[in-house]
Amino acid sequence: MSLKQLPRRVTVLSGGVGGARFLQGVLRLRERSGSATEVTVVANTGDDIWIHGLKVCPDLDTVMYTLGDGIDPERGWGRTGETWHAKEELAAYGVEPTWFGLGDRDIATHLVRTQMLDAGYPLSAVTEALCRRWLSPVLGDGLRLLPMTDDRTETHIVITDPDGGERRAVHFQEYWIRHRAEVPAHEVVVIGLPDAKPAPGVLEALLETDLVLLPPSNPVVSIAPILDVPGIRDAVRTTSAPVVGVSGIVGGDHVRGMARQLLGVRGVEVSAAGVGLHYGARKADGVLDGWLVDTVDADALDPLHSAGIAAAAVPLMMTDHDATADMVQAALELVLP
Amino acid sequence: MSLKQLPRRVTVLSGGVGGARFLQGVLRLRERSGSATEVTVVANTGDDIWIHGLKVCPDLDTVMYTLGDGIDPERGWGRTGETWHAKEELAAYGVEPTWFGLGDRDIATHLVRTQMLDAGYPLSAVTEALCRRWLSPVLGDGLRLLPMTDDRTETHIVITDPDGGERRAVHFQEYWIRHRAEVPAHEVVVIGLPDAKPAPGVLEALLETDLVLLPPSNPVVSIAPILDVPGIRDAVRTTSAPVVGVSGIVGGDHVRGMARQLLGVRGVEVSAAGVGLHYGARKADGVLDGWLVDTVDADALDPLHSAGIAAAAVPLMMTDHDATADMVQAALELVLP
Repeated sequence: MSLKQLPRRVTVLSGGVGGARFLQGVLRLRERSGSATEVTVVANTGDDIWIHGLKVCPDLDTVMYTLGDGIDPERGWGRTGETWHAKEELAAYGVEPTWFGLGDRDIATHLVRTQMLDAGYPLSAVTEALCRRWLSPVLGDGLRLLPMTDDRTETHIVITDPDGGERRAVHFQEYWIRHRAEVPAHEVVVIGLPDAKPAPGVLEALLETDLVLLPPSNPVVSIAPILDVPGIRDAVRTTSAPVVGVSGIVGGDHVRGMARQLLGVRGVEVSAAGVGLHYGARKADGVLDGWLVDTVDADALDPLHSAGIAAAAVPLMMTDHDATADMVQAALELVLP
Repeated sequence: MSLKQLPRRVTVLSGGVGGARFLQGVLRLRERSGSATEVTVVANTGDDIWIHGLKVCPDLDTVMYTLGDGIDPERGWGRTGETWHAKEELAAYGVEPTWFGLGDRDIATHLVRTQMLDAGYPLSAVTEALCRRWLSPVLGDGLRLLPMTDDRTETHIVITDPDGGERRAVHFQEYWIRHRAEVPAHEVVVIGLPDAKPAPGVLEALLETDLVLLPPSNPVVSIAPILDVPGIRDAVRTTSAPVVGVSGIVGGDHVRGMARQLLGVRGVEVSAAGVGLHYGARKADGVLDGWLVDTVDADALDPLHSAGIAAAAVPLMMTDHDATADMVQAALELVLP
């Protein structure tokens, strides 16, 4: 059987670490096949946070640093060769929060971004400017990184406070970094989402594309916020391009992150099938044409097929770029004619 | 002869490095004599600059870091154990200016300051908050650091542009750091000064004190901006406390900095006598009761005495805290009854 090629235009909805690594596979596949595919990434901005007066966009930056070869490969986030002196000093001043990982090199990105936002540029224009340093030298015009929206959105998690025992809403970053997702979570609320508009280029990238990919990013706090920007889910449902996703749940748990905890909050079964069925088939008001599960989750194929979703079980561990490229190849095979 | 004691209240007008080192002598003298002198520092804010969206106050910070034992003793400015990663990254983004020495540890100070200013706190309140970390643990209530004004003032120097050959105004920091004061300077303009009001506590610190000290700070860009804040020169002229200054010009040149270049702009003779006479005697509309010159400048004593300024020639090299304390002692002897 001859392998299908990456089509000319591919659009990827992405969270942070998982999305960025998946994109490395997309780019490796592009490289392998020598294709001139234009990749557009629509990144989640629900994780964004104002911290110490700086606008921090963790998912945009993780994608940018990862593909621009500036990421710390061990941590998976933040800059290589990073130091933490400003963070130490902020703690010495006693200013909160002290739990956020604000690196010295990373701060430069946030300073440039904050200044441009203050000067009136929308986040999409700021992101383009930052990517001129990181992505253009490596990828030329081959990759565009778009925030899902230029409007402020912030994901909050209603938790049981480990100190007081009361319920309160904390920023997703506080839930994840400070509390390591180890406190009971009851609700996920993305503030600002109902009034957010897709950033310029986002709807076009979904409607005028040949393939939409959903990486194994967190379904609740990475992919759902993107889909929930008014207009985006409709575009994913109505685009003429096939839509295929990859399960971040393998063997009944997340590979990385805290999807297990948050899927429960949304009443979604923590399984490869559960997440695929949660996204749903396009023909049944969902967003998926195809869904890849790991080989250990082959039992998910039947219920997915029954729901009208093309599905296959392949190795989903993104151990290196080639393994990830193989995964992307399997996604193509599933939905491209 | 019995040595005169530091009086109960001392107010010092200060620039950056020279002022901070002079203050170390004041504090050493206080320590030596076991006195409970309350020292109030009124610092120049004309050097302040907004850079990469951060409010930087070089003179306030140099005094704060120096007296709080956080200064880099070799450079004389900035933090000990400093790194420059954010600066490197800002340069990699291609954002200007690249010549300003923005250290990673230092950035934390500017982040706290900028956030508090954005939240509506005046600079004096911000400075008090920052000093709670640096000065309170070391000096308790013994030292207060006040900005000369809460209003934005910025010293600009009209230079001949080394590239185009045209005259243009640049921020003092650009003249000093980028051009190393090696380009022709024609004019010094402190923007915002005519409308500035003394910060809370400044006039009281001058009127209700027992001694006013002028360290060997730059007369043109450190001390003059303070005196030129409307109300401050009058307070210095009319306070019942004696006012005594120390020459930063020794042997016809500055000990450190760029006073030589800028005194020329103001038409002031670059000599210990010249600067003293420029400040002038209080009895003749000036600000000085006394003026210390270095032993090498003993020939300055006659013209100073003739102008009605008490003067003495003593070693003025601030080689260590004790030498500086001796200098402060000599200043006391000159004007205290």
